[in-house]
Amino acid sequence: MAKYKVIGTRPIRHDGVDKVTGRAQYTNDMALQGMAHAKILRSPHAHARVKSIDTTAAAKLPGVYAVVTGKDFPNLKDKMAELGEGSVNLAHLSANCLAHDKVLYKGHAVAAVAAVNAHVAEEALKLIKVDYEVLPSVTFVLDAMKPDAPILHPDLTTDELGKPGAGNTNIAKHLHFETGDVAVGFKQADVVVEREFKTAVVHQGYIEPHVCTVLWNQDGHVTVWTATQGSFTCRQQTAELLQIPIAKVTVVPMEIGGGFGGKIRVYLEPVAALLSRKSGRPVRLMMNRADVFEATGPTPGTFVRVKIGAKKDGTLVAGQAWLAYDAGAYPSGIIGPGCMCVFSCYEFPNAVVDGYDVCMNKPQMSAYRAPGATQAAFACEQVIDELAAKLGLDPIEFRLKNAVKEGSRRVDGPVYPKIGFIETLQAAKNHPHYKSKLTGANRGRGVAAGFWFNCGLKSSCSASVNLDGSVNLIEGSTDIGGSRASIAMQLAETLGIGATDVVPRVVDTDSIGYTDVTGGSRVTFATGLAAIECARDIIRQMSARAAEQWECKPDQVTFADGVFKGPSKSLGFKELAAIVAQTGEPVVGRATVDPQGATNGFGVHIADVEVDRDTGKVTILRYTSVQDAGTAIHPSYVEGQIQGGSVQGIGWALNEEYFYDGEGRMRNASFLDYRMPTALDLPMIEAVIVEVPNPDHPYGVRGVGETPIVPPPATVANAIHAAIGVRMTEAPISPPKVWAALKS
Amino acid sequence: MAKYKVIGTRPIRHDGVDKVTGRAQYTNDMALQGMAHAKILRSPHAHARVKSIDTTAAAKLPGVYAVVTGKDFPNLKDKMAELGEGSVNLAHLSANCLAHDKVLYKGHAVAAVAAVNAHVAEEALKLIKVDYEVLPSVTFVLDAMKPDAPILHPDLTTDELGKPGAGNTNIAKHLHFETGDVAVGFKQADVVVEREFKTAVVHQGYIEPHVCTVLWNQDGHVTVWTATQGSFTCRQQTAELLQIPIAKVTVVPMEIGGGFGGKIRVYLEPVAALLSRKSGRPVRLMMNRADVFEATGPTPGTFVRVKIGAKKDGTLVAGQAWLAYDAGAYPSGIIGPGCMCVFSCYEFPNAVVDGYDVCMNKPQMSAYRAPGATQAAFACEQVIDELAAKLGLDPIEFRLKNAVKEGSRRVDGPVYPKIGFIETLQAAKNHPHYKSKLTGANRGRGVAAGFWFNCGLKSSCSASVNLDGSVNLIEGSTDIGGSRASIAMQLAETLGIGATDVVPRVVDTDSIGYTDVTGGSRVTFATGLAAIECARDIIRQMSARAAEQWECKPDQVTFADGVFKGPSKSLGFKELAAIVAQTGEPVVGRATVDPQGATNGFGVHIADVEVDRDTGKVTILRYTSVQDAGTAIHPSYVEGQIQGGSVQGIGWALNEEYFYDGEGRMRNASFLDYRMPTALDLPMIEAVIVEVPNPDHPYGVRGVGETPIVPPPATVANAIHAAIGVRMTEAPISPPKVWAALKS
Repeated sequence: MAKYKVIGTRPIRHDGVDKVTGRAQYTNDMALQGMAHAKILRSPHAHARVKSIDTTAAAKLPGVYAVVTGKDFPNLKDKMAELGEGSVNLAHLSANCLAHDKVLYKGHAVAAVAAVNAHVAEEALKLIKVDYEVLPSVTFVLDAMKPDAPILHPDLTTDELGKPGAGNTNIAKHLHFETGDVAVGFKQADVVVEREFKTAVVHQGYIEPHVCTVLWNQDGHVTVWTATQGSFTCRQQTAELLQIPIAKVTVVPMEIGGGFGGKIRVYLEPVAALLSRKSGRPVRLMMNRADVFEATGPTPGTFVRVKIGAKKDGTLVAGQAWLAYDAGAYPSGIIGPGCMCVFSCYEFPNAVVDGYDVCMNKPQMSAYRAPGATQAAFACEQVIDELAAKLGLDPIEFRLKNAVKEGSRRVDGPVYPKIGFIETLQAAKNHPHYKSKLTGANRGRGVAAGFWFNCGLKSSCSASVNLDGSVNLIEGSTDIGGSRASIAMQLAETLGIGATDVVPRVVDTDSIGYTDVTGGSRVTFATGLAAIECARDIIRQMSARAAEQWECKPDQVTFADGVFKGPSKSLGFKELAAIVAQTGEPVVGRATVDPQGATNGFGVHIADVEVDRDTGKVTILRYTSVQDAGTAIHPSYVEGQIQGGSVQGIGWALNEEYFYDGEGRMRNASFLDYRMPTALDLPMIEAVIVEVPNPDHPYGVRGVGETPIVPPPATVANAIHAAIGVRMTEAPISPPKVWAALKS
Repeated sequence: MAKYKVIGTRPIRHDGVDKVTGRAQYTNDMALQGMAHAKILRSPHAHARVKSIDTTAAAKLPGVYAVVTGKDFPNLKDKMAELGEGSVNLAHLSANCLAHDKVLYKGHAVAAVAAVNAHVAEEALKLIKVDYEVLPSVTFVLDAMKPDAPILHPDLTTDELGKPGAGNTNIAKHLHFETGDVAVGFKQADVVVEREFKTAVVHQGYIEPHVCTVLWNQDGHVTVWTATQGSFTCRQQTAELLQIPIAKVTVVPMEIGGGFGGKIRVYLEPVAALLSRKSGRPVRLMMNRADVFEATGPTPGTFVRVKIGAKKDGTLVAGQAWLAYDAGAYPSGIIGPGCMCVFSCYEFPNAVVDGYDVCMNKPQMSAYRAPGATQAAFACEQVIDELAAKLGLDPIEFRLKNAVKEGSRRVDGPVYPKIGFIETLQAAKNHPHYKSKLTGANRGRGVAAGFWFNCGLKSSCSASVNLDGSVNLIEGSTDIGGSRASIAMQLAETLGIGATDVVPRVVDTDSIGYTDVTGGSRVTFATGLAAIECARDIIRQMSARAAEQWECKPDQVTFADGVFKGPSKSLGFKELAAIVAQTGEPVVGRATVDPQGATNGFGVHIADVEVDRDTGKVTILRYTSVQDAGTAIHPSYVEGQIQGGSVQGIGWALNEEYFYDGEGRMRNASFLDYRMPTALDLPMIEAVIVEVPNPDHPYGVRGVGETPIVPPPATVANAIHAAIGVRMTEAPISPPKVWAALKS
């Protein structure tokens, strides 16, 4: 018998019809009267000093309303001390929106024009004269760490293990975690494997380019319509960059055509705001695809060295990881979760992890689904695979032997609460896919595990009860992957009503309490918690009203299964709602939450591949993704997340990469040349949901969006190794690399 | 020293810049992709049976997307028993939107067309063939009450003093209030005056015609963008008329270009919804000015007989009022407040009031600022004036002698709490205007009083605290007269922050708790109460967070003047907001209220007029409006309300009226022929605010919007009497009537 009435069912998502009929309103669908269209001039150089920008001719072109450069931004560099450092370095963020004195990557914005239409704006860009002093550039992380590397930020102060550094470096951060004694550990090992791995810069590849429309009103109020993962972060970044009060900025989150971590940082909004202020018009600013590739935040290319030792019986005794991640033009911090996740699946009595965040002449790196974890897993899970083979152990058995469980301590500190890694490994082991025989030449099967901690953060919900017992729910979490449904379902379950009795809506920053970004696999968990609290608030109020009705004490009213019961009477939710609506104040529930700690998502993937020895092309024959969702609120969307993440991870594994030439220029900034897998390239991904409920959520939700991208590159690499006996250590494992490996 | 920091100040309204720069978004400013434009075919007859409607040719016209008639509405007539009667008769409302079988007034909607543009839609209207059987019509209330009158609703059941009637009548309702024994009272009287009065149908004359855009989405969700006084009433009426769940309708209230009571009932929204469902497109439906006059809800023409008796010393002993009000095509109920207000200013030991709501061939009457009260005051206040003259008493002294005060009982029942009528009369008496001498021929001064009870009803507010201590406030009350400012100021006062630290916003029906209409002079009072409660909720949460911060108990934290104080530390609101934003859950306050009872607004007006004996034209020389606002939150908007109401009342007094011809057709349905006073016609209205705080509101708000329209017609009539010695009993007291009276 089902434990829940709504949770675990598969209603059509509330925004589904709008999406398939084209009614859903994306930023580019809206037009305002008198709206100007803007374009950005971008640097052709990967590294250069901007000696001067002459916008005179552009400003004079008929149809041009406004031209801005970095000088139009408030000078935040000098204010940084006073502003404090917060989570975002505003001076860097400002310079990334419009370069202040140097350009740090090809595509770096240097000026912007608003005009009567996009064509005039583009024409005006050509009239802007920028005098560059071209500087040497660096785009590979190990090169950027060298003492003689071109330095991006002369004033960069390395926080070297917490100690302030002294500049003349591209290393923005060095992280170090240690547990036990690795030297002792490796001495105990019977088998040790050490390898070096490289991964390429990859892009989230969302369908919708960055776009916003901004109106800087005559009363100083700035309204931003945009596609963003976090309307409140966008509000705060925009307000702080422009140095105006937060309440003077309203961010209206439109529907979003994908984000995956890449739509958190602002790129266009403050620029469009400046153009709007200068022109007195609403301004739409949209990137083209090349802009998106070159000038937004892809996720780091990396160099990782992993060394792991195990005893003959398969017990891991020591692990050592050295990770150097591209930061891009400005410190990006993706190294942090990379270090947290590299050894997070296994119990290591002795381990040490060192991580480096390294600036170089690429766009500032961003989150991309489990940021940093996939690259780390690509390294760790291949070494684990190799160890298992050397020990003659089944790779899942080997992982089971060392798998983290409740009480295990991660190298970076946290002790796991109840987690479901063992159950997930077992589900993979027992899956027909894993039990099936794979035959044929050049074919192989690989498995790998993956972890993402998932986060909590702040969320707000508010809900009002209608006369007919339906409920309007508002939330601040922008909906990227179906969270309107998953949040509404938790509210419905708690209230004992149907999923479609709840009408969920994502509202602007004026209309709901502060809510953190949609990311970190937090929304169904944390905003879900807010929805549950909100429902409980409604139940409290309605119980009190029932008590008034029945002339009893509020604590004599109980609520279960959608029914309010008093000492002698009872009323269903809808019946009581009708009474409540006609007597006394309206019932509105609200809740704000800030859950601490992680909810810990684990996944195990199985891939069967076939390698074409003539071309080096790898074909995925079968792919199964097993993951602990805690509890799957809406199984279809959990499956969708697992499939989507797996596909993106396979893209990393086999094809996707930023190609840089010797001058630090990306040479494949289009979907034609930056090759993402399509439905035609892959078999159906089989998603298997394991449910080990999260003890920190009433319904056990863990969050699912990020974990599924972590295992694929390692899974595929392990499968390729099984197929052709070659250990591929550089992602993407593209046909030329496989072909070359086969030849050598 | 000022009692308050924010209340009583005059900040620029939050929506002010948007209004004066043209950025404010009205319904007609928005356009949706693929939007159709609709027009309505209206009856040329005042009363007719609709035998058939042939829309075939119209539907075939190229560019026409959909045609609907009354048959497209769900049949609510048969469902009325099951639906119950509620506050709105849905069968009548539906038939008023699109006639079902009869047309009851010229301009009654019979069909609607949605097309590629408004011109094609108009062209299509001409192709619709309606076969009418014309019936005799009636447009004067006493005629409509006659036994042989044309009957509008054969099934109309008169609720004759609570007893169900038996049809064959146009009388929809008979109200009867009685106190003491009038026969005995009149016997005690030394002087008795009895007179009959007539007033014309008048229109609110809002600048913006009715307009809406509706999208009936493929998922069954209906979104309505409209100018309405009540987004939630609009939602409920639309949902019920279309028989769809309330949560399936979202009403987005756009800025509103005036309402005054006339934008509460739906006219267009359900019709546009039907057209949208049929065409699959968003549909914009807008009235022209003639439609507005002929087919929306003006306010009743009336016939009123008032008889009042007083003793020589000026004590009132008996009052009798008989009021017959136009209901228009369907029962409208404006008679109710007419009966409540007719004797509401004075203590009558003996009184009887009878009121009749009478259907006739005019559009269904609506509220218009203190609905029903102005017509009643036109009668009562002239009789009072005449009595004062007969008794040789100063008219204000006479009123003061009999004025209601705390503990006085109104004829219809309620006992007044603390009220400010005496203080208002005294302020008028002491005003330089009243003390000044008026000299010159054909000039006269009049005074009259007026009352509106003001109501409470349901309101919801929600507010979230930002990092910088600014607060976003959302409310469900559509803002017609500056209530965003007056509500925000109450929140600001309670939180100890500035008015501009609060950013108020009126949101759609999905995003806030149920809120009743903007009307009844309730918003600054009731939604203000919600804002104050909302602020208190914020203070509670922030006090608890301060206690966490200071490691003390929440009840050890006090809040006053914007400062939280603990046992040893204190923090200002903004300082604590910054801490709160960075630690733990967001702070969101919410409150829902449903205050009972009335807040009782009284006004006394003074007018000096000059009559042109050659033309009968009356010129207002000086006009002073004194009113008890309880507490004026934003004095400029209180003054604006008082001035606006006074001007509208002067329009009723002198010029405004619906002219009907013998066939029941309005002949002056344009602003050219329906003459409203302009700024050039009138002197500056001097508004005097009296402040006798309302004990039922923390800051003493009473509400001010409606009372100022009540005294003007009587004030002007009394002044005309003083000028030329003629008692004018028919409003408007237009030049032909004055001229005729002077000649006779």
